[in-house]
Amino acid sequence: MNRQVVLDSRPKGIAQAENFKILDTPISPLKSGEIRVANWFLSVEPAMRGWIADTNNYAAPVAIGEVMKSLAVGEIVESADANWPVGQMVTGWFGWQKLATITAAAIVRKVDQTDLPASLALGVLGINGVTALLGLTMAGEPKTGDTVVVSTAAGSVGSAVGQIARILGCRTVGIAGGPIKVAQCRDLFGFDVALDYKADGLGAALQSACPDGVNVYFDNTAGMISDSVYPCLAQGARVVLCGTASIAQWDPWPSGPRVERHLLVKRARMQGFVVLDHFDKWDGAVAQLTQWVREGKLRYAEDISDGLESCLDALAGLYRGENLGKRIIRL
Amino acid sequence: MNRQVVLDSRPKGIAQAENFKILDTPISPLKSGEIRVANWFLSVEPAMRGWIADTNNYAAPVAIGEVMKSLAVGEIVESADANWPVGQMVTGWFGWQKLATITAAAIVRKVDQTDLPASLALGVLGINGVTALLGLTMAGEPKTGDTVVVSTAAGSVGSAVGQIARILGCRTVGIAGGPIKVAQCRDLFGFDVALDYKADGLGAALQSACPDGVNVYFDNTAGMISDSVYPCLAQGARVVLCGTASIAQWDPWPSGPRVERHLLVKRARMQGFVVLDHFDKWDGAVAQLTQWVREGKLRYAEDISDGLESCLDALAGLYRGENLGKRIIRL
Repeated sequence: MNRQVVLDSRPKGIAQAENFKILDTPISPLKSGEIRVANWFLSVEPAMRGWIADTNNYAAPVAIGEVMKSLAVGEIVESADANWPVGQMVTGWFGWQKLATITAAAIVRKVDQTDLPASLALGVLGINGVTALLGLTMAGEPKTGDTVVVSTAAGSVGSAVGQIARILGCRTVGIAGGPIKVAQCRDLFGFDVALDYKADGLGAALQSACPDGVNVYFDNTAGMISDSVYPCLAQGARVVLCGTASIAQWDPWPSGPRVERHLLVKRARMQGFVVLDHFDKWDGAVAQLTQWVREGKLRYAEDISDGLESCLDALAGLYRGENLGKRIIRL
Repeated sequence: MNRQVVLDSRPKGIAQAENFKILDTPISPLKSGEIRVANWFLSVEPAMRGWIADTNNYAAPVAIGEVMKSLAVGEIVESADANWPVGQMVTGWFGWQKLATITAAAIVRKVDQTDLPASLALGVLGINGVTALLGLTMAGEPKTGDTVVVSTAAGSVGSAVGQIARILGCRTVGIAGGPIKVAQCRDLFGFDVALDYKADGLGAALQSACPDGVNVYFDNTAGMISDSVYPCLAQGARVVLCGTASIAQWDPWPSGPRVERHLLVKRARMQGFVVLDHFDKWDGAVAQLTQWVREGKLRYAEDISDGLESCLDALAGLYRGENLGKRIIRL
């Protein structure tokens, strides 16, 4: 038998526990070319909101009754594909379930770094780390000496962005919510300055932290945090739009201060970045990230819950900002 | 004696006639290196609003009591610089006045196209045409077959953008205000589709005019016109921010629908473009534009008023949308 988390109803806004349900389902014998993976770790991402939403999305949404789409790490326990033997650890699109019956197309990569925890394939050596490295370098184009501002700086993407920017010779300013995350930014992730957006005066704090302006803004939030950053952009600044975590709903569409004048006056650029467009660069990015992790230059935090039942409230909890580090479910 | 239009008070919003005054001033003998230009034509630009404003600007503003900064075309009538002989026609930063006492640094270029009206050096062969060509190609990066949408499509920048985009093999959709400008877009400037933003249903009209989405949006307005375009962006779209003509004031800062989600979902880019950053490409651009004008591929409209007194209300009239074509003052 398999155990699965399926989408039970389409959420308006952030998915809550009641939008999912757990099903026990029989498994079928493998057909030729199929592979069975026993999931060890399941990923929880802010982007999952987009994967479920039926509007303003970048792929067809998960259907009602379908297993929740997710990245996972697991071990091949049965195989009808000679290229993928039993015992191989893999990461890929295996969904929120105990056993995934897939074809090789669902595999993102082998997980062969046996000196490192397998769960890292979901965070710093997975979609989050790759997003940070490719988004920062491809869309942010940081130069030595640049000031790089990062929102959700304690999160798994933001914390990697800040550290990679420092490796590349930039000064880093992280924005996070509350004193614990701010301390994590400063002490664990090495941001030069860490600011609490929940405290008063974010705009003034940013201006004083960025006296020469913001050259790169790597944004995972949109909303009021971004509204404080835009007036601080330096001439020729690059804004990487990677997520909109602070906006609970896009229906009705929210308003905010207009950005056009900032971008025009500063000859600045704002660009959407979706890492799923760049699978061709994935392996190279993972190799670079792995090297930095082994050298101790790239740190990470994980927030691991146990059991498939933990999936139900995991996405809602992420948007409540509860997690300290990459949220992962261990099976 | 000289006659000059000087800034008399700093406007809040768009400069009105009462923010300027006309002064008769004596002229001094030339010092070594100085040049005296008798202005034939003075330029009126939407960007002048920014040149006067004391905030959100890209250069130090014109001081109170100072001659209004402007481009102009004139003839050298006196010279203490051997490189610039009397009789040479030139265009440059000569200001709203009859006689400009300058150095060579204020000259943008010689005006030697004697087969074409000298006034074109202020419009289609000047800052407007160069803005259109460089902004479209450098920031818009149009590809053959792209759909290019242009706001203020009957204006001197917008009309050139639309025609250049067609020369480059794009499909063009122009947005202008009122039936006369819309007809001008279609009949004079050859837009494939011309839409009236003052009519109802701009958003629906845009969606039906751009069934495959908008690949390039060359924007001179921001505001509600842009708010109708953003939801139509195609994947990988480029938005060129060239002006914000529809926003009367940036104090208090106006709000509008947030753009971040559109840009993220469509992996789109939005970039501010200021042509004054690109003087190194000016001569090459003018040569290309001149060729297209001579070949009849690039048409223009001029809206010429007579006398220095016409300057006073010229900028306000521009923002009232009165002009049909490049607004020029003839002396």
